[in-house]
Amino acid sequence: MSFRLEAGDGNARAGVLRTAHGDVPTPAFMPVATQGSVKALDPADVRGVGANIVLSNTYHLYLRPGIDLVEQFGGLHRFMGWDGPILTDSGGFQGFSLELLRTMSEDGITFKSHIDGSPHTFTPESVVSHQQRLGSDIMMPLDVCVALPAEWKPVEEAVERTNRWAERSRKAHVGGRQLLFGIVQGGLYPDLRQRSAEFLTGLGFPGYSIGGLSVGESKDDMYRLTETTTAMLPQEAPRYLMGVGSPEDLVECVARGIDMFDCVLPTRTARNGALYVPEGRLNIDSAPFRDVDRPVQEGCDCYTCARFPAAYLHHLFRAKELLAYRLATLHNLRFVLRLMEQMRQAVIENRFDAFREGFMRRFVPPNEEARHEQRGRWLAARARREEGE
Amino acid sequence: MSFRLEAGDGNARAGVLRTAHGDVPTPAFMPVATQGSVKALDPADVRGVGANIVLSNTYHLYLRPGIDLVEQFGGLHRFMGWDGPILTDSGGFQGFSLELLRTMSEDGITFKSHIDGSPHTFTPESVVSHQQRLGSDIMMPLDVCVALPAEWKPVEEAVERTNRWAERSRKAHVGGRQLLFGIVQGGLYPDLRQRSAEFLTGLGFPGYSIGGLSVGESKDDMYRLTETTTAMLPQEAPRYLMGVGSPEDLVECVARGIDMFDCVLPTRTARNGALYVPEGRLNIDSAPFRDVDRPVQEGCDCYTCARFPAAYLHHLFRAKELLAYRLATLHNLRFVLRLMEQMRQAVIENRFDAFREGFMRRFVPPNEEARHEQRGRWLAARARREEGE
Repeated sequence: MSFRLEAGDGNARAGVLRTAHGDVPTPAFMPVATQGSVKALDPADVRGVGANIVLSNTYHLYLRPGIDLVEQFGGLHRFMGWDGPILTDSGGFQGFSLELLRTMSEDGITFKSHIDGSPHTFTPESVVSHQQRLGSDIMMPLDVCVALPAEWKPVEEAVERTNRWAERSRKAHVGGRQLLFGIVQGGLYPDLRQRSAEFLTGLGFPGYSIGGLSVGESKDDMYRLTETTTAMLPQEAPRYLMGVGSPEDLVECVARGIDMFDCVLPTRTARNGALYVPEGRLNIDSAPFRDVDRPVQEGCDCYTCARFPAAYLHHLFRAKELLAYRLATLHNLRFVLRLMEQMRQAVIENRFDAFREGFMRRFVPPNEEARHEQRGRWLAARARREEGE
Repeated sequence: MSFRLEAGDGNARAGVLRTAHGDVPTPAFMPVATQGSVKALDPADVRGVGANIVLSNTYHLYLRPGIDLVEQFGGLHRFMGWDGPILTDSGGFQGFSLELLRTMSEDGITFKSHIDGSPHTFTPESVVSHQQRLGSDIMMPLDVCVALPAEWKPVEEAVERTNRWAERSRKAHVGGRQLLFGIVQGGLYPDLRQRSAEFLTGLGFPGYSIGGLSVGESKDDMYRLTETTTAMLPQEAPRYLMGVGSPEDLVECVARGIDMFDCVLPTRTARNGALYVPEGRLNIDSAPFRDVDRPVQEGCDCYTCARFPAAYLHHLFRAKELLAYRLATLHNLRFVLRLMEQMRQAVIENRFDAFREGFMRRFVPPNEEARHEQRGRWLAARARREEGE
């Protein structure tokens, strides 16, 4: 068994995912190392923020530096200097999301390179082969993702093709060291999610991804379909919600039974100067932080908050110093990974609902007015603290 | 005494510079933290490469985040999280080099901000005040720098004004915790260098900077005037050659009696993908490094070489990943700082000439043809090593 469920609290779960490169406590967030590097961080930094697994993109690595080259180095772990677990996606999503798709047939997809425009073909078989040669611990099969909103019929076709490709992927998968997940599609249609889940669980996979969400629908729809879909999946396998990872989405989707996440948001927003604190997002380059002689977040155990006042980060962003991007990324990733640790502990101690409620009340006030008021209170509190000292 | 000379070998010297934030073994190279950050590195990185002192630019910090703000944080050390010695320049050079100078008078210089074009005035007194408020350990007086080539008369005027400004700077300098150096000007004219050196040593400073070199003259002229000028300076004070710091210049100028250097070259060339090795400079993003399963430099004790194959750096540069700039900077700075350590040891052991000759023969072959041939040999040797294993 590659997954052990340790505790449940409502639909929220705590478990351990076993991989060839070590165990991953769940719920888990996977920082994204698109091109073999979590942007602005080195592997020691990634360990330092508490990450136990990272995600890399097959599409990007296939184009550059190339699967052959990575294989020549003994795989992605050694090439990028990361000895923990790696999950790779199939490249299918990039084929769609980057608007590089040229043709799709029953055989596979043809897309053009975002680097030089050259044409390339991915089939279910080649995608499994690429990931096996990269040496990732968890692989994704090629799937068909439909942007939302979408009519029932094209979503049904996507589900059917995804199912057939899942079967082909399983046959192409050689050896047992790497885990191949199944991907549940079906857009916002519960009947199609059901059809997809039934087919895949019938085949039997060591884990199930939920695809086709966070692709244009409302947050409410995303949450609703996540809940609907996890209910269709077996308790004993991990559920991975692909491409979702804002702090509020992590909490709301753990509440709905998700065990694994990946998302570029925490790192991308960090590089844009938006830093997570329990009260929401701060724009560190905005004027109020010019002279703040406090960490970005009081009590935060990240590298950045332990060493630098918020004013220094503000200065680095204003001055466009490269260090800004690393320090901000370290903070946001630590915030998110600590959140995962806290949720896991809350599940184990059977107090997940209280944790969730407390987090959401602070991080996402119920409406804009409350948010505005909260921000005012927070800034005022900061000012008082500083005056008082 | 703030400087203790420990050994000499020909004109090369080994000493220790004592500052309020610790001792600096010399010869010393100071990485440049223009805006309060050595580009792409954090303070732990800077320590890790072996730096014992950094340089920051008063001009830049004055404009952003502002002297008031840094002072409010207790000075630059705490603001940027660096507890070692800091040398600040006077801002005069930026006033000239950035072509931002508007007017110069006996009182001082007026320049426009490179950020918003606003006008600002620096006087010898204000510049000392700015640096005292920044809390740097070593301060530079405002001086007049003339781009080369230049006629004798304007250089003479620059020397005379620099001398008068040095006197005013001394008067403005309050307290003894910070060291104020004198700056010797005089372009390529030995008689003017002599006049400048005599005046400044007559006043008496704890250290002497050599300014106005590396501003358009040939390397031969730079080396010649460096040698000429150090001969005019007292043995018991440190000599700082401003703005010089390519590996070959470090060696050649230590040979001519220089104790301290600063330069953006090692860090800037690193960010451009040019990495130092004993055989010269490598362009890590060039095709031959695509598949090199070896560190950038065999046996290098830097963070980067200890962890990553050259091919990974090549990939990061090609992919424009932010990590590329940090890893390359770590290597080049370690290369330069190890070079300083090696030169110091060679002086102490009275074998500096042999070290210098050995370094220069590899790093700067006597002519282009030899360089070409050497590079061919080096690449071939690399290829053989890899085939053989």
